[in-house]
Amino acid sequence: MCESSAFVLKNNELYKVMENVVSVDPHEGKVYLTDLLGDQKIVDGVIKEIRLMDHKIILTEE
Amino acid sequence: MCESSAFVLKNNELYKVMENVVSVDPHEGKVYLTDLLGDQKIVDGVIKEIRLMDHKIILTEE
Repeated sequence: MCESSAFVLKNNELYKVMENVVSVDPHEGKVYLTDLLGDQKIVDGVIKEIRLMDHKIILTEE
Repeated sequence: MCESSAFVLKNNELYKVMENVVSVDPHEGKVYLTDLLGDQKIVDGVIKEIRLMDHKIILTEE
């Protein structure tokens, strides 16, 4: 499986906001995350980087 | 393995720009893609969406 966890980078620390993320849609200063079960979470911020081998999606609130 | 392919969406069609992508770094209107072998490609644009289950990273040139 290829799902990842989404983290917010704040004050140089990573805070996990969602596990088993399967889709990521950035849109006008928000990032829409959807997990395996179809649950959705909306984070204020932008995508900072994606590390597929580490299963990490890193967002920032800038 | 969790690498994906990166596509640019243009005129409603997806054009593949890189396979076996392992990291994605958007930065100031460019998206830096790195593949399994460490090769890098820079695309003018932004991340439109990421579908991990489909192994697709979709960029647009807006």
